[in-house]
Amino acid sequence: MRKDRTSLGKRLRVPVGEPVDLSAQDAAATPGGPDGKAAGKAATARIGERLAGLQERLWAASTAGDRRRVLLILQGMDTSGKGGTVKHVIGLLNPSGCRITAFRAPTAEERAHPFLWRVEKALPLPGELGIFDRSLPHSRLRSSGRCPHRGRPRGPSVRGLAPAAEIDRRYELINRFEKSLADDGVTLVKCFLHLSYEEQRRRLLKRLDRPEKRWKFAPSDIDDLALWPAYQEAYEIALERCGTAYAPWYLVPADHKWYRDWAVSTLLLERLRELDPRYPEPDFDVAECRKRLLRQP
Amino acid sequence: MRKDRTSLGKRLRVPVGEPVDLSAQDAAATPGGPDGKAAGKAATARIGERLAGLQERLWAASTAGDRRRVLLILQGMDTSGKGGTVKHVIGLLNPSGCRITAFRAPTAEERAHPFLWRVEKALPLPGELGIFDRSLPHSRLRSSGRCPHRGRPRGPSVRGLAPAAEIDRRYELINRFEKSLADDGVTLVKCFLHLSYEEQRRRLLKRLDRPEKRWKFAPSDIDDLALWPAYQEAYEIALERCGTAYAPWYLVPADHKWYRDWAVSTLLLERLRELDPRYPEPDFDVAECRKRLLRQP
Repeated sequence: MRKDRTSLGKRLRVPVGEPVDLSAQDAAATPGGPDGKAAGKAATARIGERLAGLQERLWAASTAGDRRRVLLILQGMDTSGKGGTVKHVIGLLNPSGCRITAFRAPTAEERAHPFLWRVEKALPLPGELGIFDRSLPHSRLRSSGRCPHRGRPRGPSVRGLAPAAEIDRRYELINRFEKSLADDGVTLVKCFLHLSYEEQRRRLLKRLDRPEKRWKFAPSDIDDLALWPAYQEAYEIALERCGTAYAPWYLVPADHKWYRDWAVSTLLLERLRELDPRYPEPDFDVAECRKRLLRQP
Repeated sequence: MRKDRTSLGKRLRVPVGEPVDLSAQDAAATPGGPDGKAAGKAATARIGERLAGLQERLWAASTAGDRRRVLLILQGMDTSGKGGTVKHVIGLLNPSGCRITAFRAPTAEERAHPFLWRVEKALPLPGELGIFDRSLPHSRLRSSGRCPHRGRPRGPSVRGLAPAAEIDRRYELINRFEKSLADDGVTLVKCFLHLSYEEQRRRLLKRLDRPEKRWKFAPSDIDDLALWPAYQEAYEIALERCGTAYAPWYLVPADHKWYRDWAVSTLLLERLRELDPRYPEPDFDVAECRKRLLRQP
């Protein structure tokens, strides 16, 4: 597979506590990846088999009291491939053990509750792999106006988002929340799918040009494209403020879909191998049960 | 694929209002199926691609207000392959659009609510495919003692189940509930995975003999095997009482795993093709949006 033995996690991890400049990151890069699309797809399929094996062991361990579970968080602009990643990476696993939630605009009931309420309800149980397609907090936390953290003026503000003080409060809550999850046995794998402006426009055009893809398009996508710099900066702040040692962000170049799938599956594989879940030992007498079973008529 | 043009649904549907005798049904049969295991697996993979396409259209239609959705209910003895069906059939679909629930022994909170409470919370939303691995109602409704519906004595009673009057009440509620779902756009696909006694014993033995499968085994499985006749009769009653024109049961011979997977995927395919979901027409001006998009720098 990869010749370089550096783990992909180390390569893609966003350094904690340092400023993030997305414009300096090449969205078409394929760091540590296989040699091109065909090799990438084949490698991802092979990784899928190993993931499925580890997933079964994680689940098996949970039946004997192991509380560990994994939460994959996918974040990124529209068309960055969050849904595609779920389809192509999570699609390789046993769907029974996957708890997938796509966070959309919050309902009236959700707005009436504290903002982490709906997130808590979507968490994976022991032995499960949870998947958040756009995390509520990180998506609603794009700031607007001048950014106090950076002290430099912002571009046009992003639509309908919380004011800066509220954002500060929420980032703090998110970090504390993620710490409590990590302490309780949740391995967080937070992937930011990093897309270039040009590739996003190309994908939006494709949605318009292919009749079977038009349902995915909304005219407001064009407004969002015009707000590109503001979104990028909002994401930079989220990556800076919510990347921690216990729940780091991984910056996944996402212009190449095959690389994105390979990278996310490899990140999951690396973390699951670290967890090294084991089939539990039987708490009954195997030989005795065997005899009883054979005595049945 | 199949030479015979009779739909599989017609072949496997349990006739409504007639007595069911499971012992007269060959669990190793492969009615209408491909010629053996290799052909069966290949056919299921091909069906999976068509299912995934229809699933996407069902989801796309829901974004334009189509409320239709599908609920696959898998019922059957332990080891009959409910989990395996989810893995091998639902695993062919986009996991984002699948809402899977495995009903286990009810929690204290669930017991405190009416018995359909937790079922209602697990229903698929418009555009989704819901999957119940063991339906709560049908699993808890195995009767015990003499069966008034049949007037003949029963074998040993099944553990911890509701008394006959309560069972009658629940069957009525289930049928009314399923009717209300059907009226609201839910296509119910209820599959009973029919396993033979010998095959169940073989599978339990395999769980004991393979260390990586022992975690799936519990000594109480042997007690359940001893209660085989009581379970069979309880299932017969459920199939008789809860099979309706709007929500029929399908009896799927399940001794051959490849046939079981092929049959469940074919039943889903037939129903989805009847639904014939369509991509919605765009409610915006495509040419205008194209122009606006290209005007972006």
